[in-house]
Amino acid sequence: MDFSSFLTSLGTSFVIFVVLMILFALLSSRPGNNVVYYPNRIIKGLEPLQGDHKTRNPFSWIKEAISSSERDVINVSGVDTAVYFVFLSTVLEILVSSGVILLPVLLPVSITASGGKTKTTSKGTFNELDKLSMGNITARSSRLWAFFIACYWVSLVTLFLLWKAYKHVSLLRAEALKSPDVKPEQFAIVVRDIPAIPQGLTRKEQVDTYFKAIYPEAFYRSMIVTDNKEVNKIWDELEGYKKKLARADAVYAGSKTTAKPEGTRPTNKTGFLGLIGKKVDSIEYYNEKINETVTKLESEQKTTLREKQQNAAVVFFTSRVVAASAAQSLHAQMVDTWSVFDAPEPCQLIWPNLKIKYFQRELRQYLVYFIVALTIFFYIIPITFVSAFTTLDNLVKLLPFIKPVVNIKVLRTVLEAYLPQLALIIFLALLPKLLLFLSKLEGIPTESHAIRAASGKYFYFSVLNVFIGVTIGGTLFTAFKKIEKNPNQLVPLLAASLPGNATFFLTYVALKFFVGYGLELSRIVPFIIYHLKRKYLCKTEAELKEAWAPGDLGYGTRVPGDMLILTIVLCYSVITPLIIPFGALYFGLGWLVLRNQALKVYVPSYESNGRMWPHIFNRILASLILYQITMVGYFGVQEFYYAPFLIPLPLLSLVFGFVCAKKFYPAFEHPALEVAAHGHKEVPNMESIFRSFIPPSLSSEKIDDDQFEDALSQVSRSTSFV
Amino acid sequence: MDFSSFLTSLGTSFVIFVVLMILFALLSSRPGNNVVYYPNRIIKGLEPLQGDHKTRNPFSWIKEAISSSERDVINVSGVDTAVYFVFLSTVLEILVSSGVILLPVLLPVSITASGGKTKTTSKGTFNELDKLSMGNITARSSRLWAFFIACYWVSLVTLFLLWKAYKHVSLLRAEALKSPDVKPEQFAIVVRDIPAIPQGLTRKEQVDTYFKAIYPEAFYRSMIVTDNKEVNKIWDELEGYKKKLARADAVYAGSKTTAKPEGTRPTNKTGFLGLIGKKVDSIEYYNEKINETVTKLESEQKTTLREKQQNAAVVFFTSRVVAASAAQSLHAQMVDTWSVFDAPEPCQLIWPNLKIKYFQRELRQYLVYFIVALTIFFYIIPITFVSAFTTLDNLVKLLPFIKPVVNIKVLRTVLEAYLPQLALIIFLALLPKLLLFLSKLEGIPTESHAIRAASGKYFYFSVLNVFIGVTIGGTLFTAFKKIEKNPNQLVPLLAASLPGNATFFLTYVALKFFVGYGLELSRIVPFIIYHLKRKYLCKTEAELKEAWAPGDLGYGTRVPGDMLILTIVLCYSVITPLIIPFGALYFGLGWLVLRNQALKVYVPSYESNGRMWPHIFNRILASLILYQITMVGYFGVQEFYYAPFLIPLPLLSLVFGFVCAKKFYPAFEHPALEVAAHGHKEVPNMESIFRSFIPPSLSSEKIDDDQFEDALSQVSRSTSFV
Repeated sequence: MDFSSFLTSLGTSFVIFVVLMILFALLSSRPGNNVVYYPNRIIKGLEPLQGDHKTRNPFSWIKEAISSSERDVINVSGVDTAVYFVFLSTVLEILVSSGVILLPVLLPVSITASGGKTKTTSKGTFNELDKLSMGNITARSSRLWAFFIACYWVSLVTLFLLWKAYKHVSLLRAEALKSPDVKPEQFAIVVRDIPAIPQGLTRKEQVDTYFKAIYPEAFYRSMIVTDNKEVNKIWDELEGYKKKLARADAVYAGSKTTAKPEGTRPTNKTGFLGLIGKKVDSIEYYNEKINETVTKLESEQKTTLREKQQNAAVVFFTSRVVAASAAQSLHAQMVDTWSVFDAPEPCQLIWPNLKIKYFQRELRQYLVYFIVALTIFFYIIPITFVSAFTTLDNLVKLLPFIKPVVNIKVLRTVLEAYLPQLALIIFLALLPKLLLFLSKLEGIPTESHAIRAASGKYFYFSVLNVFIGVTIGGTLFTAFKKIEKNPNQLVPLLAASLPGNATFFLTYVALKFFVGYGLELSRIVPFIIYHLKRKYLCKTEAELKEAWAPGDLGYGTRVPGDMLILTIVLCYSVITPLIIPFGALYFGLGWLVLRNQALKVYVPSYESNGRMWPHIFNRILASLILYQITMVGYFGVQEFYYAPFLIPLPLLSLVFGFVCAKKFYPAFEHPALEVAAHGHKEVPNMESIFRSFIPPSLSSEKIDDDQFEDALSQVSRSTSFV
Repeated sequence: MDFSSFLTSLGTSFVIFVVLMILFALLSSRPGNNVVYYPNRIIKGLEPLQGDHKTRNPFSWIKEAISSSERDVINVSGVDTAVYFVFLSTVLEILVSSGVILLPVLLPVSITASGGKTKTTSKGTFNELDKLSMGNITARSSRLWAFFIACYWVSLVTLFLLWKAYKHVSLLRAEALKSPDVKPEQFAIVVRDIPAIPQGLTRKEQVDTYFKAIYPEAFYRSMIVTDNKEVNKIWDELEGYKKKLARADAVYAGSKTTAKPEGTRPTNKTGFLGLIGKKVDSIEYYNEKINETVTKLESEQKTTLREKQQNAAVVFFTSRVVAASAAQSLHAQMVDTWSVFDAPEPCQLIWPNLKIKYFQRELRQYLVYFIVALTIFFYIIPITFVSAFTTLDNLVKLLPFIKPVVNIKVLRTVLEAYLPQLALIIFLALLPKLLLFLSKLEGIPTESHAIRAASGKYFYFSVLNVFIGVTIGGTLFTAFKKIEKNPNQLVPLLAASLPGNATFFLTYVALKFFVGYGLELSRIVPFIIYHLKRKYLCKTEAELKEAWAPGDLGYGTRVPGDMLILTIVLCYSVITPLIIPFGALYFGLGWLVLRNQALKVYVPSYESNGRMWPHIFNRILASLILYQITMVGYFGVQEFYYAPFLIPLPLLSLVFGFVCAKKFYPAFEHPALEVAAHGHKEVPNMESIFRSFIPPSLSSEKIDDDQFEDALSQVSRSTSFV
C-alpha cells in the first residue's frame, strides 16, 4: 500500500464518519426515533430528553457525555460499564501522556536523519510515512537514544496509570458491594458437587442438615438445582402461544374498521410453519393450545421439582457477611465435594452447567483450551491467504471478470485501501459466538464469567492472528522456513517486520474509529431494522418493544477489539510515533460515543461489579510486555549496542503484574468481608430473595409452597430472625 | 570401589549394628537408664515398662513396636508423628510390592544375558554386581521389555499407594481437627498487616472495632502482638538467676554432711563467667539479683504492653467454625492489609516475624530462595572434590604421611569403603540449621511451617548435590564440557552414569540403615552425655531433667534423608533391582526403630495435624518423576526402540499430582468447615484460651487484667455466651 492510497483511505473514512454524524443529527432529532436513540431512558420510564437539553442541538450529546460523571454511569448502567470507561480513559491517558512527549521529540529526530535513504525497510516500499519513523535512523546512530528513552517513558507512564486505575476500580467495586440495597446474590452461595444422597434422606434434607450444622444461626434455606430442560421447553412453547394469541387478537382488532365493524377473525394452518395443514380460527386455536400447555407445564413443573434434582443447590443465608465468608471457605475435607462459589445475579446462573462435576469441569476446561489453541493456530491459514491477496492485481488474476470494475480509478484506490482490512473485520465478527459457546462448554456456571472467558480467548486470537499474523504474514513466504528452523528468531523477525506494516495498521485503526464509531453512534443498522419490523411485522405493543430492545453494551467483544488497537498502537508507539494520535482518537472518540450510548441506549443485561477489570488489566500488561519485547528486538535489528538495557522493562512489568495480582485481585475473586459487613444491619425479606432465584419456567402463581418443598427446602426460619 | 570392598563395607556396617543392638539390650535393661530409654513415658508420669512386658526381654521392644496401633502413636506422639509413619510404611509397601515382582523376574533375565561382556559400563570397573543389573543386557535386546514393564509396574504401584496414603492422612487430619477437645488454636486467628492506627483510636480499639463489625456475635477479644525482644531478655536473665539460686541451694544442702552439719555456704565471683570480680555469698547474691530483675521485668512488661505494640494481633472467637472460616476469608479490599491465617499452637508462633509486612515477606521469600539456590549450586564444588578423592591412592599422593596407615590391608579396605560416604554424611549434617535459619528469615510466622520450609530446601539440596552431583560427578571431569555445550544432554548423561555408581549408593544405603538406626535405637550418644552431665554438672532435679530431655523426633531433617534414600532406590530399582531389598530394609528397620523411639523416647514439640504430608507427597512424586525421566534416558542409552513409550509415565505422574493437589491439598491449608463444625457445641472457657497465647515472659501473676488492657483487649463478652 502506498502513501496515496493511505491518504485516500483516511479521507474516505472521514467522509463516511461525517455522513453518519449528519444522519445521526437528523434522525435522533425526530421524536419518532426516540426508541432507537433513547431506549434506555424509555425503559426506565424517563423523558428521552432531560434537563436543559430540551432543544435538539446536534452537538448537545457531546456536552452531555462529557459532563456526565462516573456516578451517573454507575446509576444508569452499572459498575461494569463504569469500569469499561475507566479502561477507555486510562488508555487514553496513556496515549496522550506518551504522545505529548514522543511526537515533538521523535518526529524531528526522525525527519532530520538520513538512514532510510541508505537502506530500504522491508517490502521495499519506502514512502513518506517511513521518514517519520525510527526506520529512517541510521543503524547504531546515537539518535537511537531518544527512542530508547521513549521506550522507558511509555512503559513507566503505562504502569503508573494502570496502578491508579486498578486502585480506582477496586474502590468502585468495594463501594458497589457496600451498598445497603438488598441484592439477592449477596445473601446466597451456590454449592456444587454434592455427594450421593445418604440412605433415608432426601437431597433437600441432606443439604439442609449439612449447612445447618455449619451455620446454625445464619442458614435460611436451600434450593436444589433441577434439570429444567424439559420444563423450559414447555415454558417457551407456552410463551410462544401467548404471543401468537396476542398477535391474533391485535390483527382481529385491526380488522374491525368502520366499514366492517365485526372484523375478520384471523386464521392459520396447524402444520409446518403455518404453511400446510388444517385451517383453523387462530384465536380459538391458540387459546386451546395455551390451556393444553398450561396443564402440561404444571405437571412437568411437579416432575422437575420432585424427580429431576441435581447435585447442586443454591443456599441462602440471613447475613451478607456469612454468605460472603461461606463462598470463600473450604467446606468439605475432600475438595471435590461441596464446592462453593458466590452466587451471581439469578439471571446469570447457567443452570445446566451446575451439575457438572469437579474434575469433569477441569477436564472440559483443558479440552476447550486445546480446541481454542487449534482454532487460533489454524485460523492463521485463511488470514495468511487474505494477506497474500492484499493486492488487487492478484484478485484480478484470479477473478478476471471484476477487471472492468477495478479499472475505474477512484474505485480501485478505495478497494485497494479497504479490501484486506474488510476481510479481516468480517473474519473477526464470526468468532465471538463460537468462543462464547466453547467457554460455556467448559462448565462455567455464570453468564458474566463465560463472557469474560470468551473475551480473553478472543484477545489471544486477535493478537496472535491479526497483529502477529499480519505483521509476519507480510513477509511470511520468505521467512516461514527461517522461523521453523529456529523459533528464537520470532522476536527479531517480528521486530524487523513491524515498520513495513505501519501503514496497514494506521489504516486499520482509522477505519475502526471513523466507520466503527460512526456506525455505533448513528445506530443506522438498528434504526433500519426497527423501522422495517415496525412497518411489516409488529402487530402488538410487546412485539414493538422487542423490536427496539437495545441489548447491552457487549463489552465482552468490545474489549478484545480495543485491546487489539492498544497492542498495535503500543507496539508502534516508538517506531512510528505518528500512530499515537490515531490511537488517542480511537479511544477518545470511543469514550465519547459509548458514553452517549451507555447513558441513553444500552441496557446492561447483568452486573458483575467490575470483575472484568482484572482480565482487562492482565491483557493490557500482556500488550505492554509484547511491546517491550518487540522493542528489544527492534533495537537489536537497529544494531543499538545498549538494546540489552531494555530487558529490565519486561521484567519490571512482570513484577508489577505480580504485585497487583497479590494486592488487588483477591478482592475481585471474592467479596472482602469488611465490605460485606458495611452498612448491613437488618435481616432483609428472605422470602423475596429466595423467590428471585426461582427460574421463570418453575415459578407460577398456581404452584404453592407445598409443591416447592420438594426441591426448595424450608427449614425453621425462626431461630435467627423473627 | 570394587566388589570386595563393597562386601567388607556391608559386613562392617552389620557388625556395628549388632554391637549397638547388644549395647541397647544391656543398657536399656538397667532401671537407672530409664530416663534415657523411656523419657517420654516418664514425662507423661507412666511406668517405663508397661503391660505384659515387665520382663526385660531384649527383643520385646520389637513386639511392642509392631503391635502398637496408629491410635497409640497419635495418643502418645500426635498426628504429625503418625503421618511420618504413614510415609515410612507407604514407602515400605512401594518397595516390597516392587521387589516381589522385580527381583524374581529381572535378576534371572540379567544374569543369563551377556551384554556386559561385550561392553564395559562406565568407569570400566565391571564387577559381579553389574551382572545382576540392566547393564548386562545387550543393547536393543528384546529382554529389555521385561525392564520396560518393570518401569510401569513400579510407577503404577507408587501412584496407587500414594493415593491411598493421601486419603488416609487426610482422614487422620480431619479426625484430629474434629476432636471435641478444646484446642486454643482452633478458636483463634492471627491477623497481620494491620494498617496505621486511625486518629483518636488505640491499636486495640482499632482491631476490636474492625472484627466486631464483621463478627458481631462470635468475636471474643484480641491480643495485640508486641515487640518482646527486651522483655524476653530480662525474662531469660531472671530464669537464669533462679536456676543458679536453686543450684546454690542444692550445693549448700549437699555440703551439710553429718561431720559438718552447718555446711559451707557456696560463693561465686560477680565478674565475667564467675571467674573474676568480687567474691560473694551465692544464695544472698542471687536472691538479691532475682528481686532486682523481677522489678525490672515488671516495668518492662508494662512498657512492652503499652508502647511496643506491633501491626499484628491474635483474634479470638467463641466458635470454632467462625474461626476456621475467618482464617480463610478475605477481610480487606486491599489484600496487603488485614491479612489473616489460622493460629498455630501458641508455642509455635514466631512473634518477631509477625510484624513483617506483606510485600516485604514476598521479597524476603524470593531473596531466600535465591540464597538457597546459590548454596545448592556452590556446595556442589566441595562435593565434587570429595568425589575426586574417592580413591585412597589420590589421598596418599596428596598426604604422603598417611601411607603407613593405608598400607595395613584391613584398614585400607575399610577406609576405601567409608571415606567418601562419611565425608558426605558430615557435609549434610552441617546444613539443616542454616536452612532453618534462612526459612525463618523469610518471615514465616509459625515454627512448624519454618521447619517444613527448611525440610523442603534440604530435599532439593540432597537430590541435586548428593544424588545428581555424585552420579555425574563420577564422570564429571570427562563430561562437564559436554553438558555445558548442550544442557539437553543432562538426562542421557545422568542415565548413562547411573550404573557406574550403583555400588557407591548401595553402600551408602547400607551405612545409613545399619549404623544410623543402630545409633538411633541404642541412643549411645545421649546416654554418654546424660551420664557425664549427671556425674559432673547437674546438682538440682531441674538440671537433671534438662539433661535427659529427649527432644522431638525431628522429622524436619529425617524426611529429606529418607527422601534421598527413596530417590536413590527408585532410580536404581529397575537398573539394579538388588537395591530394592536394601531400601526395604532401610524403611522397615526405620519404621521399627522409630516406632519404639516415638512411643518411648521422643516428645513432640508441636502439632501441626499432618500439614507436613503434602510436602512429603510432592517430594515423593518429584522423586518418581526423576526416576521416570532417567529411565526414559537410560532406555535411550540402551538403544531400545520403544523408549518413547515411557514418556506417558512422567505425564501421568504430573496429572496425578495435579488431581491430588486439587482434591486433598486445600484441606491441609485450612481446616474444612464441616470438620470444624463437628462435635463442637458449647462455648469453651475463653479466658483460658486467651491466656494460653500470652507468652511466658509477659504472663505474670502480679500483672492483673487492668494492665493487660493496653495490648490485650477485652470487649463486651456478654452478647453471645452467658
